[in-house]
Amino acid sequence: MNCSIARAVEVVGEWWTPLVLREIFFGRRRFEEILRELGISRNILTDRLATLVEHGILDRVAYQETPVRHEYHLTEKGRDLFPVLVALQNWGDKWESPAGAPMVLYHRDCGEPAGPTLTCSACGDELHARNVRPRPGPGLSEATPASR
Amino acid sequence: MNCSIARAVEVVGEWWTPLVLREIFFGRRRFEEILRELGISRNILTDRLATLVEHGILDRVAYQETPVRHEYHLTEKGRDLFPVLVALQNWGDKWESPAGAPMVLYHRDCGEPAGPTLTCSACGDELHARNVRPRPGPGLSEATPASR
Repeated sequence: MNCSIARAVEVVGEWWTPLVLREIFFGRRRFEEILRELGISRNILTDRLATLVEHGILDRVAYQETPVRHEYHLTEKGRDLFPVLVALQNWGDKWESPAGAPMVLYHRDCGEPAGPTLTCSACGDELHARNVRPRPGPGLSEATPASR
Repeated sequence: MNCSIARAVEVVGEWWTPLVLREIFFGRRRFEEILRELGISRNILTDRLATLVEHGILDRVAYQETPVRHEYHLTEKGRDLFPVLVALQNWGDKWESPAGAPMVLYHRDCGEPAGPTLTCSACGDELHARNVRPRPGPGLSEATPASR
């Protein structure tokens, strides 16, 4: 399917994967730390981390030699998933968290709550479903006219 | 788990759900249209649409009386998922689409490619993983100190 949403979901759409990434974004880089925070099974965490390494989202880096111990670092490709997590978080805050946001992101540079907003890089205005229009891009081959 | 990412993934994280939403954002509101575009089974599409209606993301609206036929409209809660889809799309465009973006979003108001960017609502600068800091929010109860 020639669709970037489908390709992204293929890689990061498995249950637990966004939460594993959340932990690593927050600086928990070691298997045992993530395991403890999420309370998931070792098998599932092993599987999700392996998939993320395989897709170049995480690097597995030795931090100790005897015995060898590894931690997981976000690559550039992994750090680029930040807007996906923030978008999920924002929506969950607004629509599924009646007691209010469990966590608030502050912008380090200005010191204020970031209130993350999706904006147009050309004009700076906010984007929403009703003010954008999809058009075919360079990667849409004529072989798949019904896909986007 | 007191985490808005987890809550969001619980609702929209099933495989096919982001693609069903994509179709409806693009104006395909009828079962048969979505079925044809996605090439999925009737059972799966029925299940995903029912879940989205149940969670208040879609409204099921009759557009014809004899026989009764329905279409699916995004609610405000549903339209608020737009940044999630855009974030997935952007990432897939950049990292999983070697032939280029299959689809480009244009901003209707300024006419330019939107190049959707996550910005700070306080100062307008771009947000990324390294310039935000999470802090406990009002919904983080003391009963769940290890959660975010």
